Amino acid sequence: MEAKKILLPEREIPRQWYNILPDMPNPLQPPLHPGTGQPIGPEALEPIFPMPLIEQEVSQKQFIEIPEEVLDKYLLWRPTPLYRAYHLERHLGTPARIYFKNEGVSPPGSHKPNTAVAQAYYNKISGTKRITTETGAGQWGSALCFACNLFGIEAKVFMVKVSFYQKPYRRLMMEVWGGNCIPSPSNETNAGRAILEKDPDSPGSLGIAISEAVEAAVSDPDTKYSLGSVLNHVLLHQTIIGLEAQKQLAMLGEYPHVVIGCAGGGSNFAGLALPFVRDKINGKEVDIIAVEPASCPTMTKGPFAYDHGDTMRLTPLLPMHTLGHGFIPAPIHAGGLRYHGMAPIVSQLVVDGLIRPEAVHQLETFKAGITFARSEGFIPAPETDHAIAMVIREALKAKEEGKEKVILFNWSGHGLVDLAAYDAYMSGKLSDYELPEEEIQRALAEIANLPKPKIKGR
Amino acid sequence: MEAKKILLPEREIPRQWYNILPDMPNPLQPPLHPGTGQPIGPEALEPIFPMPLIEQEVSQKQFIEIPEEVLDKYLLWRPTPLYRAYHLERHLGTPARIYFKNEGVSPPGSHKPNTAVAQAYYNKISGTKRITTETGAGQWGSALCFACNLFGIEAKVFMVKVSFYQKPYRRLMMEVWGGNCIPSPSNETNAGRAILEKDPDSPGSLGIAISEAVEAAVSDPDTKYSLGSVLNHVLLHQTIIGLEAQKQLAMLGEYPHVVIGCAGGGSNFAGLALPFVRDKINGKEVDIIAVEPASCPTMTKGPFAYDHGDTMRLTPLLPMHTLGHGFIPAPIHAGGLRYHGMAPIVSQLVVDGLIRPEAVHQLETFKAGITFARSEGFIPAPETDHAIAMVIREALKAKEEGKEKVILFNWSGHGLVDLAAYDAYMSGKLSDYELPEEEIQRALAEIANLPKPKIKGR
Repeated sequence: MEAKKILLPEREIPRQWYNILPDMPNPLQPPLHPGTGQPIGPEALEPIFPMPLIEQEVSQKQFIEIPEEVLDKYLLWRPTPLYRAYHLERHLGTPARIYFKNEGVSPPGSHKPNTAVAQAYYNKISGTKRITTETGAGQWGSALCFACNLFGIEAKVFMVKVSFYQKPYRRLMMEVWGGNCIPSPSNETNAGRAILEKDPDSPGSLGIAISEAVEAAVSDPDTKYSLGSVLNHVLLHQTIIGLEAQKQLAMLGEYPHVVIGCAGGGSNFAGLALPFVRDKINGKEVDIIAVEPASCPTMTKGPFAYDHGDTMRLTPLLPMHTLGHGFIPAPIHAGGLRYHGMAPIVSQLVVDGLIRPEAVHQLETFKAGITFARSEGFIPAPETDHAIAMVIREALKAKEEGKEKVILFNWSGHGLVDLAAYDAYMSGKLSDYELPEEEIQRALAEIANLPKPKIKGR
Repeated sequence: MEAKKILLPEREIPRQWYNILPDMPNPLQPPLHPGTGQPIGPEALEPIFPMPLIEQEVSQKQFIEIPEEVLDKYLLWRPTPLYRAYHLERHLGTPARIYFKNEGVSPPGSHKPNTAVAQAYYNKISGTKRITTETGAGQWGSALCFACNLFGIEAKVFMVKVSFYQKPYRRLMMEVWGGNCIPSPSNETNAGRAILEKDPDSPGSLGIAISEAVEAAVSDPDTKYSLGSVLNHVLLHQTIIGLEAQKQLAMLGEYPHVVIGCAGGGSNFAGLALPFVRDKINGKEVDIIAVEPASCPTMTKGPFAYDHGDTMRLTPLLPMHTLGHGFIPAPIHAGGLRYHGMAPIVSQLVVDGLIRPEAVHQLETFKAGITFARSEGFIPAPETDHAIAMVIREALKAKEEGKEKVILFNWSGHGLVDLAAYDAYMSGKLSDYELPEEEIQRALAEIANLPKPKIKGR
């Protein structure tokens, strides 16, 4: 009988998050004001974020204490099990040893609450009464409602209208946790009303929802805004994944040759990967792969440039890999991987050659997801399927080469409320879509007049 | 920081199931032939079940080895965590210590795979190529497909037609695991064709689906049939829940004053409870509560009688609490608790005074489920909400009495694919329904001419 789950005792849960900012070979370049193009300081973020999160956003401390109250909530599902994927290995006939960190065991079913709980806590101690956010398919919105409920904060989620009606299950999760989820564009903000006036039947977009959520936060002193990916403090909170995984692998005397995660805004990937990037900076040999959809190839095809985080160009310019703020992603089923940009930390580490980006096609990802579900049992989220597709490629390469590689990946969430996507795949309704070269040219033109980040020596 | 999860190391997973048959103060009375009313022996079950399961159905061995191959699959999600529900305790302000066994961590999200995996294994070693079953809302069907896939057996699930179209997520889970799920009544069996001939638009029923699944099994020597509850061998496989819980509580030096589970056919309840019933038989004081819906009050209002397991009266007569085989349950949202009968083992133990049945109303259960989700985070299945409603009653009683009671309950599954039920509750569309006395009279009349079980001294 082989041990399948490496369980970290609760008392050994990491007490600090890992902050990679001071360890980066090339420091992160500052955000710029969307209007003036001048560097902005942390104080510019005060209207939308509470001070402790702003401090974390620019902190140069290598490790940051996790507050007791956050640990208390983490323990509802953390430490998450590290699984050895014996059944998948056998199915592939690979000599590789495959491990995955099961972040699907959290109540909302993904890694998102790692930062949602932390953000809700810091808002709570800063006197915030209400948090607003936007959500597309609903993973982030549900995690934020879950977290706000734990700390007695009101949550208001602007959900892209078309998803609000097409994907009711995530919305219902928000409501079970007492959250307030409204279809965007809404009548509650100037931004929403302006859109509705022009087009009463607007299906909404993430760009519009961001504008509504930010406006709702800025216009009320008791309300703050919250983001589920991209920013430094979000990635910081997610590092508990990689820190736990390092402890769990150490219990077995293992160290990974390959570390894999899917990347949309970059948070689940960075959460697992950054502690290993630290080792790599310190001389350890490890291949760290960020997997994105071929239809939204931010890192593999997009330039490293300053760009806005939102379509309406209201947010600061961030130095990142981008497909342009006007990018309209193909309607692939991994909703969490359809963002035009990438976390600045991940982007800079790609530039620095510490992270290897790879793109995979949609059909390969669903095939991989079904292979996983039929060997390991658990049904992965369509986003997670991207990581699994790369794991299978690496495991088959190890088989060809006859190498006993250790592969570690982040099983970022389950797919139980995404089964319609599997249905579309199994009934042959999905296809692959490779971003045409013209789209890259369009992105380049779109950002041509924006300031350029410096690319330092690699 | 309080430890919330009591994790049993994989190497300490129980190696045997507990069989209560030899320990029962009054032995189970035999099943009777549906036509002749005469006792039938195990050999009568050979056309539908493989021999190892038939042997377990009547075994007098107190402990039965769990095969290595079954343990290997169990480890995909077992041992399941035992949780201390601190946040719920605090919310209720109770001195009670509340523990729950989280069976929702299995890939299909409930306790059902504990027996599905065992049944698939015994079928595999008996040469079965295909297993048929019926499913209502889909919990059992999805668990069986998950298990069959692990052992390379074909699964064919007859799903009640109205659920097939209204609840696609469970069907999709079956298909992701390679199962074949078809709406019943179907054209594949005589039973199905007969119904369709009379009513081409028949919405189907569990009774019809059972007939189809049994017919499909009987008419092909390589095909067997499988049941997800009620029978002795099913309850046997579920006892791993209670055996694990006993080990986990022992790690803390705790023993429950109250053990609670919801009961439809009886399998998740018995899985947790039977090892504690054993202790009770041996003199331990423990209150063991089986919770059923007030709208389907099998144990609290139905007589203990011989009755058929199916509407069409094809299955053997079993000695059980029953509302009559013609009972049509109210359309409550806990689909798994709408069965007219109850496992003979559970029924006999109720008669013997070892198990205390209680009925709760639907609105109380959803209120309890939301209280749980807002304190402990995890969203429970509507069935599980019945257990939680009783836990809250007991915890509040302990508060009134100022007693430090230990309450243990089975968190039989999560509600992530049952969110439409919560939606109906939150939007005020649900109501309570108490079974009218006439229905009990109808049940009594229906079974009046059937043989009677002996009720031995209590």
